[in-house]
Amino acid sequence: MRKIIAICGDSKIEKDGDKYKFAFSVGKALVDNGYRLQSGGLGGVMEAAFAGAKSSEKYKEGDTVAIIPSFDRTMHNEYADIVISTGLDMMRNAIVANADAVIAIGGGSGTLSEIAFAWPMMRLIMACNCVDGWSSKVADTRMDQRIRYPEIPEDKVFGVSNADEVIEILDKYADKYNKFHKGIVIDL
Amino acid sequence: MRKIIAICGDSKIEKDGDKYKFAFSVGKALVDNGYRLQSGGLGGVMEAAFAGAKSSEKYKEGDTVAIIPSFDRTMHNEYADIVISTGLDMMRNAIVANADAVIAIGGGSGTLSEIAFAWPMMRLIMACNCVDGWSSKVADTRMDQRIRYPEIPEDKVFGVSNADEVIEILDKYADKYNKFHKGIVIDL
Amino acid sequence: MRKIIAICGDSKIEKDGDKYKFAFSVGKALVDNGYRLQSGGLGGVMEAAFAGAKSSEKYKEGDTVAIIPSFDRTMHNEYADIVISTGLDMMRNAIVANADAVIAIGGGSGTLSEIAFAWPMMRLIMACNCVDGWSSKVADTRMDQRIRYPEIPEDKVFGVSNADEVIEILDKYADKYNKFHKGIVIDL
Amino acid sequence: MRKIIAICGDSKIEKDGDKYKFAFSVGKALVDNGYRLQSGGLGGVMEAAFAGAKSSEKYKEGDTVAIIPSFDRTMHNEYADIVISTGLDMMRNAIVANADAVIAIGGGSGTLSEIAFAWPMMRLIMACNCVDGWSSKVADTRMDQRIRYPEIPEDKVFGVSNADEVIEILDKYADKYNKFHKGIVIDL
Repeated sequence: MRKIIAICGDSKIEKDGDKYKFAFSVGKALVDNGYRLQSGGLGGVMEAAFAGAKSSEKYKEGDTVAIIPSFDRTMHNEYADIVISTGLDMMRNAIVANADAVIAIGGGSGTLSEIAFAWPMMRLIMACNCVDGWSSKVADTRMDQRIRYPEIPEDKVFGVSNADEVIEILDKYADKYNKFHKGIVIDL
Repeated sequence: MRKIIAICGDSKIEKDGDKYKFAFSVGKALVDNGYRLQSGGLGGVMEAAFAGAKSSEKYKEGDTVAIIPSFDRTMHNEYADIVISTGLDMMRNAIVANADAVIAIGGGSGTLSEIAFAWPMMRLIMACNCVDGWSSKVADTRMDQRIRYPEIPEDKVFGVSNADEVIEILDKYADKYNKFHKGIVIDL
Repeated sequence: MRKIIAICGDSKIEKDGDKYKFAFSVGKALVDNGYRLQSGGLGGVMEAAFAGAKSSEKYKEGDTVAIIPSFDRTMHNEYADIVISTGLDMMRNAIVANADAVIAIGGGSGTLSEIAFAWPMMRLIMACNCVDGWSSKVADTRMDQRIRYPEIPEDKVFGVSNADEVIEILDKYADKYNKFHKGIVIDL
Repeated sequence: MRKIIAICGDSKIEKDGDKYKFAFSVGKALVDNGYRLQSGGLGGVMEAAFAGAKSSEKYKEGDTVAIIPSFDRTMHNEYADIVISTGLDMMRNAIVANADAVIAIGGGSGTLSEIAFAWPMMRLIMACNCVDGWSSKVADTRMDQRIRYPEIPEDKVFGVSNADEVIEILDKYADKYNKFHKGIVIDL
């Protein structure tokens, strides 16, 4: 099964600004390398990444999955192929974040919640370190003191500054970050 | 954008029994006619429909979307192409049910909850009337007294007894059942 | 710890009609007998039961818990003491239904979803059999074929026609309906 | 209606350490001043605050509300009076955070998710600035650049170092932080 990579970040960004370019290039690179994308399905970084995905020569219809906050299936950006209309408002961030890997690009508190969920969900997390917002603040840090993968001592939110680095991290780690005991995050 | 049709029903069924055959044929017919499928991603009817989808000559990778109860992305049937790991346990039924149309095949209380959600979500609902379980009990009835679509006085849970009837109902109604005020079910 | 009983039913009912009277008397009887109430926190049956609770001589502030669909903490009926603002829209029905026992009074598809959730959640369920709506349709039936409590062969949705019967059922069964393996409904 | 204040923080702490003492004293002070408490209902800071609440002379049964991750109603600390069993696992953090005000005490990524949700939910947020963990990292900062309350230019995550400061902030701000347009966080 093809892996799905989540893209998180600001829902409003400058067209053709740094965040747009970064998200677009990452979206394209992901599809170039056989991955599918999921995001919150709205504007900004989410839209830029999906637009990039569609610019790939390897793009196939179905490669962009929008996990939207509304029950209204029409509330998504124009590059979404598949819409999952959750009705969960902000809580859908947890579902977005629970992908095979997560890439944060800038972002306010919504993006931060996605990183904060992805960490205890044991997910591989990358964060763009060259734009403003939460992604650069948490790049190359650990979100808390838990040892997630004893066999991966370098585990952290991996800072990335371009699409090539994203693919390198995925090549190196995507298969290793797959531990999920019992399907429950909070172990009682 | 291709429409996504939800398949709901028993998670444990007899292989090659009536429910299996019905779900398989509906899954195949849906892909034959250009639809994508979503389900709860587990066994029984959910698996049979996905298997049918994959047997279609028009099947393309990405046509089966599993919206699973666990956060564990490996807990799905073998025919799922795309996994949305919700962590919502039974509450994920609401997301499954919020598709462009819903088809119930047999089913216990889980399936009933999906029908009960799809109705106020204003969705087009079909229910197999020739197998045991909740689908035949609610086929050709209204789930409550609300007038969902004044312009569709025949609105109800449409009973269906074979895949051709499913496609007929979709051809006739799929574009009409798209009203969703404000993205909220419970209007305060 | 005092048990919490969920009241489900129509959100719009006639003031002083049968459903209002039934819900009011049940709400009063529950507090008279030491129980706390929870509901979806809106109008109709939910409001009537809370009003009844407050009419009990044993009522103490805190006895009525409103589990509301909105994130907006002001969207509740006037008899609510404690507001849990879920933001889950209709999905909050699953949380309402997951009480120590559930009593359905009339109801459309929303109430039906609560019964449909309470059943696999292993909850003690009562349904008013003397008003119209889903409660009388499912009274004295099983929601599906699963054997929930082998040691309680008479397990079903218990039909009730007055507040005394509600208290009798609670006296007899409330302590027995407490089995919940692993905190998960859908056992994978 | 009495306001409900959410307490967030580490689920495992040293008994009688700084976090325990802080949470206990805040819990007590909140009940002393007429507030009710809610938390995730588990151990550590959540338990310490509830224990403090119960030590208040003004404590009444019903003052501690546990919003737990499981559907299993028994999975809560011993000081909980009211249990809301959500089945939402970590996503219940959003409901915990949507209180009349939120107080973070230390905390790992789970606590961070609660702060990250409380911010766009427009809630009054306090964070203990004298213990390790996320609360001191975000104390006296804004979670992102949005102007939440133009009429409160000093809006931020208010750093607090003792229970008196918590009560001062509540006295000053609790009534002002009550803006919640349309009950939706993500405005589409």
